[in-house]
Amino acid sequence: QQLLTGRASRPRPFRVTNADRSLKKGIMAYSLADLINKVGESLSVLCVSGLVLDEDGTGVDTEGFFQALPENSVLMVLEKDQKWTPDTKSPFRGQPSDF
Amino acid sequence: QQLLTGRASRPRPFRVTNADRSLKKGIMAYSLADLINKVGESLSVLCVSGLVLDEDGTGVDTEGFFQALPENSVLMVLEKDQKWTPDTKSPFRGQPSDF
Repeated sequence: QQLLTGRASRPRPFRVTNADRSLKKGIMAYSLADLINKVGESLSVLCVSGLVLDEDGTGVDTEGFFQALPENSVLMVLEKDQKWTPDTKSPFRGQPSDF
Repeated sequence: QQLLTGRASRPRPFRVTNADRSLKKGIMAYSLADLINKVGESLSVLCVSGLVLDEDGTGVDTEGFFQALPENSVLMVLEKDQKWTPDTKSPFRGQPSDF
């Protein structure tokens, strides 16, 4: 029954950053809807327009894909008109000119 | 029975991008046919002409090859007249002139 509703029996940890990566919070969430609710409060985001994976900008739109994410996945919350951009400070994503 | 139909017992996560890589979505899919159905809606693609691996443009045409892909493989959806091109922004695919 829990599988049918896509809602886990206990909350899982996620890490959520804002669009400029100036703030990152650990949040426990049962579901995507639950996370979106909590993100607004935790990161002071008034209107969440989307959640994407920080690593590659993949949009997390469905409960099923959210449930398939491993614990402690890093997500980025986007507000209206904000877009994901690669993390240029990440050691694995240096620009070619860095070499 | 599930093996005969080529349909997995539970959906697996994939990441699908459009041809210009401006949009990427996480999608759960049981099968290649299921993914193609969901891609149209998720990425607002009217008519899917093909699915290829984002990393090297390999065409994913058969259910068998699709089922052999690891979870979270990144696929690119192509519409008519669209072609796969290498991702020049990927850190692992710097252009030869960068070295």
